[in-house]
Amino acid sequence: MKKIVVLGSGMVGRAIIEDLSDKYKIRAVDNNSENLKKIRCNSNTETSKIDLSNKENIIKTIQDCELVIGAVPGFMGFRTLQTVIESGKNIVDISFFPEDALELDEPAKKKNVIAVVDCGVAPGMSNIILGYHNSKIKVENFECYVGGLPFKREFPFQYKAPFSPVDVIEEYIRPARYVENGNIVTKPALSEPEFIDFEKIGTLEAFNTDGLRSLLKTMDIPNMKEKTMRYPGHIEYIKVLKETGFFQTEEIEIKGKKIRPIDMTTQLLLPKWKLEDNEPEFTVMKIVISGKKTGKSKKYIYTLFDEYDQKTGSSSMARTTGYCCTAVAELVLNGDFFRKGICPPEFVGTEKMCYEQVLEYQKKRGINYKVQEIR
Amino acid sequence: MKKIVVLGSGMVGRAIIEDLSDKYKIRAVDNNSENLKKIRCNSNTETSKIDLSNKENIIKTIQDCELVIGAVPGFMGFRTLQTVIESGKNIVDISFFPEDALELDEPAKKKNVIAVVDCGVAPGMSNIILGYHNSKIKVENFECYVGGLPFKREFPFQYKAPFSPVDVIEEYIRPARYVENGNIVTKPALSEPEFIDFEKIGTLEAFNTDGLRSLLKTMDIPNMKEKTMRYPGHIEYIKVLKETGFFQTEEIEIKGKKIRPIDMTTQLLLPKWKLEDNEPEFTVMKIVISGKKTGKSKKYIYTLFDEYDQKTGSSSMARTTGYCCTAVAELVLNGDFFRKGICPPEFVGTEKMCYEQVLEYQKKRGINYKVQEIR
Repeated sequence: MKKIVVLGSGMVGRAIIEDLSDKYKIRAVDNNSENLKKIRCNSNTETSKIDLSNKENIIKTIQDCELVIGAVPGFMGFRTLQTVIESGKNIVDISFFPEDALELDEPAKKKNVIAVVDCGVAPGMSNIILGYHNSKIKVENFECYVGGLPFKREFPFQYKAPFSPVDVIEEYIRPARYVENGNIVTKPALSEPEFIDFEKIGTLEAFNTDGLRSLLKTMDIPNMKEKTMRYPGHIEYIKVLKETGFFQTEEIEIKGKKIRPIDMTTQLLLPKWKLEDNEPEFTVMKIVISGKKTGKSKKYIYTLFDEYDQKTGSSSMARTTGYCCTAVAELVLNGDFFRKGICPPEFVGTEKMCYEQVLEYQKKRGINYKVQEIR
Repeated sequence: MKKIVVLGSGMVGRAIIEDLSDKYKIRAVDNNSENLKKIRCNSNTETSKIDLSNKENIIKTIQDCELVIGAVPGFMGFRTLQTVIESGKNIVDISFFPEDALELDEPAKKKNVIAVVDCGVAPGMSNIILGYHNSKIKVENFECYVGGLPFKREFPFQYKAPFSPVDVIEEYIRPARYVENGNIVTKPALSEPEFIDFEKIGTLEAFNTDGLRSLLKTMDIPNMKEKTMRYPGHIEYIKVLKETGFFQTEEIEIKGKKIRPIDMTTQLLLPKWKLEDNEPEFTVMKIVISGKKTGKSKKYIYTLFDEYDQKTGSSSMARTTGYCCTAVAELVLNGDFFRKGICPPEFVGTEKMCYEQVLEYQKKRGINYKVQEIR
């Protein structure tokens, strides 16, 4: 039985571990024993409380495995990926760090490592889907709208997630890069809000975030944009905090103590934005891809609506994110995806079989990406 | 020439000092030399940089004066008042502290001290006006709406003031006490918002604050309420901060350092809520008093609209607040108001001559309280 080490066992890490432990030996690693306790272990699962900010700890815990899953918080994602690559291990990563993974492409190739990064929903599934169609038609336009939200809306932010507030706020600060008429344009995060209606959910508000990431480098598509969705009103209140200085990353002195406002803010938001155990939530995504094939216009619309699973008590956001990762992990372990170096998920989607297997893998687990071809 | 010591020389203190220095010897005291520098001094004014958190310093600086004006920030107001009373000096106070001044009534009477407190607009003028009518008719209803605002509205809070943010937020936290049908009822601060229209300004939003203060004890009126006014939207954003925990007064630990969230919040708000030099702003108040006199219904509506004075460059909020204080100071110095003990301003208004002189004093300075009798 092949062995996988999962670095980081938060909500997403846990969904990954529980999914993979049917077929593989799993070592689940986290510095927080509360996280480890929540995992539904079987005889294939071992848990290990380890401080992953220490590089030597990572090297040691992954030395006997076939594949690593990176599911640490964003701020430590890049360093972790670097260490795994240096150790010569294949990795599928979902830690969604702000740095540019492609900087590690050369080292990964030298070590003969397959490193698939950004393997979530968006980035993740959106890249795989675009990668697939980009290999079939000349894509001229790509739009991606994505959001994960609790069903119960609470004042003021109407938001909860399995990700840490600091990673979410990072998305709200970083300027958003788009492609318009072949040029990269930079817009403020949270800008250009628009309302979008969804069945079962109602109206959400979409706004600019810097979600294209690797697509900016790997794709030659004249128009690409990515927007995040929240309940209407969320970003207005986020802007109140931003404008007042609550997201400042420079230290200020308060009664003789130096503090970064962002650190206090994320600490106050942590309990407010934390999904309760068994709290119903959902993931929603809409992707529009249009272009031409031998002169004929083509247009595809993908939609995903996935909600909290009452039977298993498992979070939708954690599953939709985690199962893209586990689907790709299986492709790597089976030798179906074997491209060396840093591979953003669009590289995975380029292979028709990989694209189909990833969708099929998730369908079996109740996550249905519906595709509509507009003629 | 009589000598007055003004403790605290912020924006309101400065308006007081500049007003009184025509007729009196003034010692202007503050711990902040920037504040002292801004005072337009004449030959009657002397400035003194003194730390007023030190009791001995206060005792020393007031020992040779006839009257003290208390204009320190709210959090040090009560202690300062106590020290002045212990020193046997008359005082007119505008520091608007959260404690109950009437607790110092006995000590003040023992020392034969006249201590008029809360001598601003509301509390202040609202109390004087109510005190006057309460001595003439049987008042059954008292409503007071008050606000001070900049003309230029800036996202997110559309608010600036000469008061420190910590004192403003104190008003937003403390539950608001009202009188309804003869009973004191407590409502959350910021509750029961309503829109009110004003000429020249437009629509403002009024909400519950705990502004009745001494009137709850001194008046036997079955219905009394006080509301603060801001631009529409202000309190919604304040509630966002409140609900998220930014007004918490208990310390939380952030990366090993213990901090009270309120301290960080007020520090971030300080530059945002600070009126710029010569920034146009206004004060607006509406008071409704109704009742009966020998069986006949009586109703009076007072309105105040006062704006920044371009000629003198003096702030409306500072003048409307400060000139109630200086008008009363003159009454005390002239022996026209001589009641010993803690005197909330309604005691001043009870004397017809005092009420008239206070209105006249301010009218001469361009501050016009318009009264309308509804028949």
